Amino acid sequence: MKLNIALLAGDGIGPEVIDQAVKVSDAIAKKFNHEITWNPALTGAAAIDAVGEPYPDATHDICVASDAVLFGAIGHPKYDNDPSATVRPEQGLLKMRKKLGLFANVRPTFTFPSLLDKSPLKRERIEGTDLVFLRELTGGIYFGEKGRRDGGETAFDNCVYTRAEVQRLAVKGFELAMTRSKKLCCVDKANVLETSRLWRETVQAMEKDYPEVEVSYEFVDAVAMRLVQWPNSYDVLITENLFGDILTDEASVISGSMGLMPSASVGTENALFEPIHGSYPQATGLNIANPMATVLSAAMMFENFGLHEEGKAIRAAVNSALDAGFVTEDLADGGKSYGTKEVGDWLAKNI
Amino acid sequence: MKLNIALLAGDGIGPEVIDQAVKVSDAIAKKFNHEITWNPALTGAAAIDAVGEPYPDATHDICVASDAVLFGAIGHPKYDNDPSATVRPEQGLLKMRKKLGLFANVRPTFTFPSLLDKSPLKRERIEGTDLVFLRELTGGIYFGEKGRRDGGETAFDNCVYTRAEVQRLAVKGFELAMTRSKKLCCVDKANVLETSRLWRETVQAMEKDYPEVEVSYEFVDAVAMRLVQWPNSYDVLITENLFGDILTDEASVISGSMGLMPSASVGTENALFEPIHGSYPQATGLNIANPMATVLSAAMMFENFGLHEEGKAIRAAVNSALDAGFVTEDLADGGKSYGTKEVGDWLAKNI
Ligand SMILES: CC(C)[C@H](C(=O)O)[C@@H](O)C(=O)O
Ligand SMILES: CC(C)[C@H](C(=O)O)[C@@H](O)C(=O)O
Repeated sequence: MKLNIALLAGDGIGPEVIDQAVKVSDAIAKKFNHEITWNPALTGAAAIDAVGEPYPDATHDICVASDAVLFGAIGHPKYDNDPSATVRPEQGLLKMRKKLGLFANVRPTFTFPSLLDKSPLKRERIEGTDLVFLRELTGGIYFGEKGRRDGGETAFDNCVYTRAEVQRLAVKGFELAMTRSKKLCCVDKANVLETSRLWRETVQAMEKDYPEVEVSYEFVDAVAMRLVQWPNSYDVLITENLFGDILTDEASVISGSMGLMPSASVGTENALFEPIHGSYPQATGLNIANPMATVLSAAMMFENFGLHEEGKAIRAAVNSALDAGFVTEDLADGGKSYGTKEVGDWLAKNI
Repeated sequence: MKLNIALLAGDGIGPEVIDQAVKVSDAIAKKFNHEITWNPALTGAAAIDAVGEPYPDATHDICVASDAVLFGAIGHPKYDNDPSATVRPEQGLLKMRKKLGLFANVRPTFTFPSLLDKSPLKRERIEGTDLVFLRELTGGIYFGEKGRRDGGETAFDNCVYTRAEVQRLAVKGFELAMTRSKKLCCVDKANVLETSRLWRETVQAMEKDYPEVEVSYEFVDAVAMRLVQWPNSYDVLITENLFGDILTDEASVISGSMGLMPSASVGTENALFEPIHGSYPQATGLNIANPMATVLSAAMMFENFGLHEEGKAIRAAVNSALDAGFVTEDLADGGKSYGTKEVGDWLAKNI
């Protein structure tokens, strides 16, 4: 296969972890006879510094022209805690999601046996956890009309959803559930919100098209509780943008494997793959960041092209590195650890 | 002191646990020479069944005429999973909050040493956890304009806040922080929402009035993570209605003492006290429900009247019961357990 991949390294540790994912992907290409062309482009604080814009048009053009986007991380301390800043890296992220039509954020949370003890939760609570959130990513309160009235004294944010938006996300949820254990949980706040009632009635109406899928409906506050109590009772969860923001982050810390969690954001035309961790500015350039989440994001990318053996090969290499203790310091428990680059080399060699 | 208390027992186990709180409060009144008049009133599914309304005007009048409201729990399975039901217990709750002006929901999460092992979190993560959420309760997306457009195909919920609404909640947060360890965390999503930017700028402007309080600002998704990782790193947290709904429920399960957590909802004129647990319909009438959260809600009620010794006496009785193992089956770990009524009697006797 010939693959054109846009490469958005971003800020902080982004470039370092992206380099390892490229290395591993190139090893995959070699082994499985693919040809990957990497198309680097600016984003985040790096893009603001260079051209005054966190998601420049030139970057967008490169993403659109590519078959997929591999993304590092964005964010820089100089933009934090300054709600009045007019240009912020996050805006680039939102603009990118919207312009690329990435309406479904796929966020798996699973455990690695060797990392179970890193979880804040007791082992018996998380063993076997393997769930996937599908978060709606281009609608809801993030993108509704927002502003001020009364000379700035009143602020508002409008949350809006159309049935079509709910449907296209729910279709992905049902389809994913069919490839897994056929359990789907729709997370909403239908006892209070009209948008949630639209979500619930839309999903209810779709149940008949997927008679094998067992669908449950839970309120977002109840899910926030049960994720901590019995995370392994969930399988596929679908939810709207803001609830998804909160719950996927909550879910990410329960497994003890947060530093290893990949994600995908997909639409009809485009797809983007990125680690869930941030830009970790303090670690920039120190060759200590864990590249595995980005490498596993590349695995999701191959799988999204239907290249399942390729994805499996990457996952196997990561598992071997974990078993062999060939890991960065965050996973070394005070024992011997290796650099970002060395772990990337090891993984590429073991493909 | 002469106290007039509205008594809203509600549904499910509500009446049973309320009875115990009344018993314990009466014991307090006797010991400390107060005179309590209890004014029972209908609410929840019980009120819908009786008069077709979950928060009847007669109930509201009784609440307004009383010095405080002691509340059990509401909710009945026949209203669940039916987003189209036109009258629901929850609506009564929202109407009650709004009409009584209960704008601040006070939700402590603390640990009881004897219950630490019931937490899904590891002991070292939760030891010493003692935090309080102040959740804004009468504004935001719960009460903004909501509805449908495009023949029902589009739904919307508007989230609105005024500076004055943020201020009165934040004042309570700063004041509470001053009586504790002077740490206040403002939880928002100021990188995306205009209402959150209003929250943040309003709280920032108030910092100068409370120079001793150390204020931090965190995004709601980050808090959802850190609550699981390091709950004991928080003290007082203030947040808007929907974030508060999700985060207080998440926080409630981390301590292992969820069944014991009380809460208060206060305004300028009125105050209401209730356990955070629900109506637990399956346990109705079985004399197995744990009354301690409701009893501790009564403690918060006395404390809200400035009667701190009275509150302390109730808390001491609960602690003694826990130490003595005089508990309901949820806390008995398969050992000897006692009925709702028996635990209430024991607590009253030990005041
Ligand atoms: C940075 C922020 C705008 C973003 C979001 O809220 O979507 C982030 O939290 C995420 O989840 O990717
Ligand atoms: C029942 C529901 C309307 C309510 C809320 O969301 O406020 C409940 O979850 C709560 O937190 O008291």
